[in-house]
Amino acid sequence: MQAVVYREPFKVAVEQVEDPRIEHPNDVIVRITSAAICGSDLHMYEGRTAAEPGIVFGHENLGIVQEVGDGVVSIKEGDRVVMPFNVACGFCKNCVAGYTGFCLTVNPGFAGGAYGYVAMGPYRGGQAEYLRVPFADFNCLKLPPGNEHESDFIMLADIFPTGYHACELADVSPGETVAVFGGGPVGLMAAYSAFIRGASRVFVVDRVPERLAKAEQIGAIAINFEQDDPVEQIKAQTNGEGADKGVDAVGYQAVAHEGEGEAPAAVLNSLIQAVRPTGRLGIPGLYVPSDPGGPDEHAKQGMLLVAIGKAFEKGLSFGTGQCNVKRYNRQLRDLIIAGRAQPSFVVSNELPLTQAPEAYEKFDQRVDGYTKVILHPVS
Amino acid sequence: MQAVVYREPFKVAVEQVEDPRIEHPNDVIVRITSAAICGSDLHMYEGRTAAEPGIVFGHENLGIVQEVGDGVVSIKEGDRVVMPFNVACGFCKNCVAGYTGFCLTVNPGFAGGAYGYVAMGPYRGGQAEYLRVPFADFNCLKLPPGNEHESDFIMLADIFPTGYHACELADVSPGETVAVFGGGPVGLMAAYSAFIRGASRVFVVDRVPERLAKAEQIGAIAINFEQDDPVEQIKAQTNGEGADKGVDAVGYQAVAHEGEGEAPAAVLNSLIQAVRPTGRLGIPGLYVPSDPGGPDEHAKQGMLLVAIGKAFEKGLSFGTGQCNVKRYNRQLRDLIIAGRAQPSFVVSNELPLTQAPEAYEKFDQRVDGYTKVILHPVS
Amino acid sequence: MQAVVYREPFKVAVEQVEDPRIEHPNDVIVRITSAAICGSDLHMYEGRTAAEPGIVFGHENLGIVQEVGDGVVSIKEGDRVVMPFNVACGFCKNCVAGYTGFCLTVNPGFAGGAYGYVAMGPYRGGQAEYLRVPFADFNCLKLPPGNEHESDFIMLADIFPTGYHACELADVSPGETVAVFGGGPVGLMAAYSAFIRGASRVFVVDRVPERLAKAEQIGAIAINFEQDDPVEQIKAQTNGEGADKGVDAVGYQAVAHEGEGEAPAAVLNSLIQAVRPTGRLGIPGLYVPSDPGGPDEHAKQGMLLVAIGKAFEKGLSFGTGQCNVKRYNRQLRDLIIAGRAQPSFVVSNELPLTQAPEAYEKFDQRVDGYTKVILHPVS
Amino acid sequence: MQAVVYREPFKVAVEQVEDPRIEHPNDVIVRITSAAICGSDLHMYEGRTAAEPGIVFGHENLGIVQEVGDGVVSIKEGDRVVMPFNVACGFCKNCVAGYTGFCLTVNPGFAGGAYGYVAMGPYRGGQAEYLRVPFADFNCLKLPPGNEHESDFIMLADIFPTGYHACELADVSPGETVAVFGGGPVGLMAAYSAFIRGASRVFVVDRVPERLAKAEQIGAIAINFEQDDPVEQIKAQTNGEGADKGVDAVGYQAVAHEGEGEAPAAVLNSLIQAVRPTGRLGIPGLYVPSDPGGPDEHAKQGMLLVAIGKAFEKGLSFGTGQCNVKRYNRQLRDLIIAGRAQPSFVVSNELPLTQAPEAYEKFDQRVDGYTKVILHPVS
Repeated sequence: MQAVVYREPFKVAVEQVEDPRIEHPNDVIVRITSAAICGSDLHMYEGRTAAEPGIVFGHENLGIVQEVGDGVVSIKEGDRVVMPFNVACGFCKNCVAGYTGFCLTVNPGFAGGAYGYVAMGPYRGGQAEYLRVPFADFNCLKLPPGNEHESDFIMLADIFPTGYHACELADVSPGETVAVFGGGPVGLMAAYSAFIRGASRVFVVDRVPERLAKAEQIGAIAINFEQDDPVEQIKAQTNGEGADKGVDAVGYQAVAHEGEGEAPAAVLNSLIQAVRPTGRLGIPGLYVPSDPGGPDEHAKQGMLLVAIGKAFEKGLSFGTGQCNVKRYNRQLRDLIIAGRAQPSFVVSNELPLTQAPEAYEKFDQRVDGYTKVILHPVS
Repeated sequence: MQAVVYREPFKVAVEQVEDPRIEHPNDVIVRITSAAICGSDLHMYEGRTAAEPGIVFGHENLGIVQEVGDGVVSIKEGDRVVMPFNVACGFCKNCVAGYTGFCLTVNPGFAGGAYGYVAMGPYRGGQAEYLRVPFADFNCLKLPPGNEHESDFIMLADIFPTGYHACELADVSPGETVAVFGGGPVGLMAAYSAFIRGASRVFVVDRVPERLAKAEQIGAIAINFEQDDPVEQIKAQTNGEGADKGVDAVGYQAVAHEGEGEAPAAVLNSLIQAVRPTGRLGIPGLYVPSDPGGPDEHAKQGMLLVAIGKAFEKGLSFGTGQCNVKRYNRQLRDLIIAGRAQPSFVVSNELPLTQAPEAYEKFDQRVDGYTKVILHPVS
Repeated sequence: MQAVVYREPFKVAVEQVEDPRIEHPNDVIVRITSAAICGSDLHMYEGRTAAEPGIVFGHENLGIVQEVGDGVVSIKEGDRVVMPFNVACGFCKNCVAGYTGFCLTVNPGFAGGAYGYVAMGPYRGGQAEYLRVPFADFNCLKLPPGNEHESDFIMLADIFPTGYHACELADVSPGETVAVFGGGPVGLMAAYSAFIRGASRVFVVDRVPERLAKAEQIGAIAINFEQDDPVEQIKAQTNGEGADKGVDAVGYQAVAHEGEGEAPAAVLNSLIQAVRPTGRLGIPGLYVPSDPGGPDEHAKQGMLLVAIGKAFEKGLSFGTGQCNVKRYNRQLRDLIIAGRAQPSFVVSNELPLTQAPEAYEKFDQRVDGYTKVILHPVS
Repeated sequence: MQAVVYREPFKVAVEQVEDPRIEHPNDVIVRITSAAICGSDLHMYEGRTAAEPGIVFGHENLGIVQEVGDGVVSIKEGDRVVMPFNVACGFCKNCVAGYTGFCLTVNPGFAGGAYGYVAMGPYRGGQAEYLRVPFADFNCLKLPPGNEHESDFIMLADIFPTGYHACELADVSPGETVAVFGGGPVGLMAAYSAFIRGASRVFVVDRVPERLAKAEQIGAIAINFEQDDPVEQIKAQTNGEGADKGVDAVGYQAVAHEGEGEAPAAVLNSLIQAVRPTGRLGIPGLYVPSDPGGPDEHAKQGMLLVAIGKAFEKGLSFGTGQCNVKRYNRQLRDLIIAGRAQPSFVVSNELPLTQAPEAYEKFDQRVDGYTKVILHPVS
């Protein structure tokens, strides 16, 4: 089959690889109809991880079940399904507690597994014609047959639940104000989710006009951090207090609002200022324990200078970590089916799988109009 | 001053009564600009309570602070404020725990107090020119100056928070389906609140076309219980399972969907059928421990035949009781200010205080177009 | 193999039945070392259910894994395991939400399955030499090897988690007072769990001196409902207020504290009186939608006269339904291993499987000293 | 009256100061019977804050009500009361939400007030004969008359609730393992509270033998960080995983387990290592936004190098800030009254107020046996 294969920094190729096959009674094989490119794929693409050439990318996957293992009970050939980016067993203590992003079974020696991602276990990615899905009863979410809402449903694999998870970590509640730093796909999904949860006002902080325009389109207040200190802008609109809750949808590749180059803790520290005493921060933006490309020795080890004194004085809480997609994907799917959520508003391009190399290149360079790409294997 | 005074069953009069005055350092006097008539006022109006002639009605009150006691710290003359229908102290163990509807201080020997309501303490109602508000720092919610959103803000005194409380008791969460029995003001507010909390679909059960039309207007699915068994209608739209959550916005004066006369447990038992296993019910609809007009000896003592066996089999949970308005009114106010909630869509009439007798009569007779009346003292 | 087989009302026999075998890749076969008799087995034993002759009893099961299906990942031959009484799949929406007592997969057309129980699916009971366990990765809880704590660990199958679940439903929190009606094994486990959760005082209401003595032994306050109205006794010890929380560990076979015969709602209504305004009730005591032996026509259909008016006035909440054992069994196991819980204090007898007929008879007749029996297959 | 007055770094004096008086209708004056010295008093004592000479110390206060303002409703002359160290109004949005440690009323321009503490508002401390208590209905917790449990009840002013709050921030639940860094009074109270909440095992990390002995006395596992890396010791006792939850009861004056001098983020970073993926940290240990005595330029501004990359990878959550005492003190009081908690086990000395200078000196020098001192004005 054809698949998107990582070759070297800044280069992927569409190549012929071996078809996946049922390896365990609880596996299914899914014929992929949509696979999205994620911002976190770019970490590997840019060579800022230990990813080796040959890895098949793709952890946002949707398709039709092609073959079913003997042990699978609830999934049948022909079912249309979307999979969380996390691979999870469903029965370890973390999965049972809802922490499916920290499964103890699927990636021995580590808490958490994923498709097509370095160090996340032996699971090939889904930017390909077919995908093997382990523990299929647990990992497949059934969708209505047909192809309706395809570009909404593919958002259920990662970024819609991840944006929602940010709001869950921050405990966003009806009537609250929320400061979302980062207007990329995850940040927009966080802002969108904040409204789903009843937020009264949501601030989205970015500097890319296209992103800020999308934020306004969903009813958020755009804050351009290049025009003025975003903390001051948010305080000015909240009686000087700051927002009730905050979301960091940027992570360690943050850029300071003044000056140049990466400032890995810039967003975190801005949020500590921008959120009012008693506030909570949801932090889905990636931070890593090892970043060879980090701007200094500490940053290379994931050690950042954080305004913990101020955070303590304000009594802030912080929730971090990758999303447990399984916790939210069914409910969010139901919002899409009911017509109450259309997360596909973030999608910029739908391309055949064969155009993946070009799509990666443009997405990586933040070329205008390449904000969120869905690949479709031709089949 | 002028006030709406209860005279006898089915009769109120606008009469001259003594002005209220500061009785305690923590009191304020509010000049009322809006006071709504509530469905629960009709229990007294119809003579189905122990209310004595002379009582001044009105527990949904909004106005301008006229006079301030020596102990009051945060409220000033001229402030525009809305008061929860519950009178609460703010410092007893129930208030501190957020159960301001069950204050142990303001109505000795009972848990909970209110303005203008039989057995709820010595607090005169606000369908009048002026109102004394005790523990004013705790009981006044400040509003933006002016008269914008007046008919939205008056909904904060009772029915908007009460509808929201129903959803809180039922733990309505994003993506869920909700069955609301009763399409009166509280039922509509519950449906509206369910959407604010991210419900995917909301069913509103009633038989009055006007109410069902309002339900559809806010995006709910209207279920006319006279056309067919509402339980079957809801199951038919939920794959035979039933709704995830339920709200009883009817209470003990329920009418069976077949047959005639009151069937006080009809709604409760329908909800037990209409909600799926593991569901939760929020019950803001009034049930009383003593109902002299009840249809049988048990009902007269508030003892109803409930399908507890079926409820247990399904593992249902039930939350009951009057709303702790203070828990929600600030956040709901902020939704109104931000333009994300307009609860005034339930308001049918705005009348001068002097027309209260006629308004009560028509509201009680469910005359078309009299679904929610706001009274304005002329001043 | 040998197994306890139901023959007719008030008669079980130890008979030779076919050995269980692996029927699905996710099955394991467990060689039973301990199987307890549960109060709910008596409902079948007494002929008050639709149980047919031939059913093998036993839903409290512990043993050693004998054989493992091809799909099982985390369980190995020789592992010592205890199973929740609920059979659950681990991947349906109820299981994923933690409602493993309401699994939608294992007993089609019904929410919830169990071993050896009428209408709870095709799962043979474990009062036998061997037991087939479906979805073994999900349903087996691993125990330390050996035979230490055997009589504590067998309590993890049902009554310890069920008692704990009652406290979870009632949200028992540190410092609170709790009224537990029923001093049988589940009631004692509820009282014990209340202390584990930090309750300050726990009242246990019963009339059997042996049970009340056990309640006192674990630090609870014994309330003999034959000596005086238990509601009054509890109020007298709580400044007239009532307890903060309540547990109904009796269910529909309740006996009124005055008079004779069953009064199915007696405990429920006493709790509504005995718990203070804002309180919550946890109701693990069984109520059934169909009770052919019920004292009146309504009771036969699971319809009971409940003081809903009083409950509403007090703003009480109710949580019902059978325990989702999987939610609690790992944590409770860890308390046993750490030496901080010894639930075996309720065990009265440990007998060979062959003595099951006599054990059932004496347990059913509440013969002194037969409060909780563990059966051990000789092997 | 006599009071403990701060004179200069490392010097307090017992001096004559003006008696407090009723300044507002909601005030009361309390005659102090017990006032404890807190570790946080030492920050001022050592001159590491902006505290000016003349300030009266003391935020852990208990006594008898001497005089009552006109607006006070529930507190009477002669009542025995203990006050949270936080001064709070009870009606601002933070107080209403339970964040009484972040009251917006009592210390304008800042969220939170306290007695006898620099920058925490104009409230004189209680290491004195008398204390003015504002908003007395809200801030006084009534105690049983007499002098029973005096040394337990005084712990309700700060350290018992603070230790409990740490467990609340970490969401310590039954069966869990908890790593508490710091075996001083707050750390011991956190460990004690973890057991009250049902923890299975609690590790207390310190190097002072006396503290480790007290930890063992309450059933915790002592970890001496001078003997070996505490992270490794905890992992060795938790199957290599780490504890479920963690508490930082040390704060910014932490000492590294290797080497010398302060290492302000040492405990925080050890906890990130010592707690397992999905864990939560409760951080009552003080961190400050400005520490003139900090070991480096960043530390002086409360900016610390935190292993945020590792924390994110593990999906940890952090809760910080000073305790909202009012949220817990009633329930903890009831545990003391019921005989289920005796927090006075941490008390080392009870001295007359006049010996305050010596007590401060010895406490500050960690002289053996001076772990927690209660002062009693002689009167």
